[in-house]
Amino acid sequence: MSDTGSLDALIQALRRLPGVGVKSAQRMAFHLLQHDRGGAEQLSQALARACEQVRHCERCHTFTEGAVCDACLDPARDATRLCVVETPADQSAMERTAAFRGLYFVLMGRLSPLDGVGPRDIGVQKLLERACDGVVQEVILATSFTAEGEATAHAIAEALKRRGIHVTRLARGVPVGSELEYVDLGTIAHALADRR
Amino acid sequence: MSDTGSLDALIQALRRLPGVGVKSAQRMAFHLLQHDRGGAEQLSQALARACEQVRHCERCHTFTEGAVCDACLDPARDATRLCVVETPADQSAMERTAAFRGLYFVLMGRLSPLDGVGPRDIGVQKLLERACDGVVQEVILATSFTAEGEATAHAIAEALKRRGIHVTRLARGVPVGSELEYVDLGTIAHALADRR
Repeated sequence: MSDTGSLDALIQALRRLPGVGVKSAQRMAFHLLQHDRGGAEQLSQALARACEQVRHCERCHTFTEGAVCDACLDPARDATRLCVVETPADQSAMERTAAFRGLYFVLMGRLSPLDGVGPRDIGVQKLLERACDGVVQEVILATSFTAEGEATAHAIAEALKRRGIHVTRLARGVPVGSELEYVDLGTIAHALADRR
Repeated sequence: MSDTGSLDALIQALRRLPGVGVKSAQRMAFHLLQHDRGGAEQLSQALARACEQVRHCERCHTFTEGAVCDACLDPARDATRLCVVETPADQSAMERTAAFRGLYFVLMGRLSPLDGVGPRDIGVQKLLERACDGVVQEVILATSFTAEGEATAHAIAEALKRRGIHVTRLARGVPVGSELEYVDLGTIAHALADRR
């Protein structure tokens, strides 16, 4: 179908979305062009606008449209506690708990040597500068409890401890609402070791 | 995160893609803004260009950038045979078999009363006019072998037969390469009834 160059280009462009293969991209392109041209135009404009407007907060590295994000500007927050998360989605989950009123540092990734993601790519140097500003008294590591998240937490903890910063990690344990019988053994072992 | 209006707008726009929920949309927006801004700009432009350029072929109703698509313009094709398919992807699968050299009519959908898709939405009137042009001698129905695809084929076949057009349907039977033991019973029953 050589007379459908812009359709083929759209399918190729959709394939750059994570988790979208050629079949999904075809289905998406077909849906947008056949049933939702308004949605296609909206998406086109939203992409262009986001590329133009969204940058990183100078203090916490999360996505923002100003120089510094709203959370970092909020004077009601406890600046002595800094919570390190991997992504803005993790930060948002943390916020929804309403259990933390300190500030954040968003790594925008995690250490993953196999994918070529090293300390520089996740802004560890920036985090060290941020944590050593004299106000922060405790850094709470809230990276994922996966192998990569743990490695990231470990590397950051070592670097911060060398600078004399008090570092804590989210507790590992049995999730709220679970029956012990169905919880995996590694989690039970951790919950037992960290009993209080 | 009130300072991320354009990020939120992007997530909302991505949710209009079929099969994309809020978590996937967040992941896509994060990936594009953090790791692939080039891809985001490419997608934005591809969407805008496709919305502007892509329209329907006047003869067969498929996507094209001209008034009539390349297949309909090809003089080497057998204009006496018209194959009716649901989508451009189905047409493309048919083409790849290299077993059909006639022309196509692409419904761009199928009858689905529950979703409010009636004969008018899939261009049945246009198909009837196309099939009664005096050149077409056989209409091959290649809609899906699902309940909706079968209903679509049945409705079209009835309308065409009333106009005296010769109508055929793709054969139902055992797929190439299958062991009989693992083929579903409905398929075996059809293959038995249509034995040759």
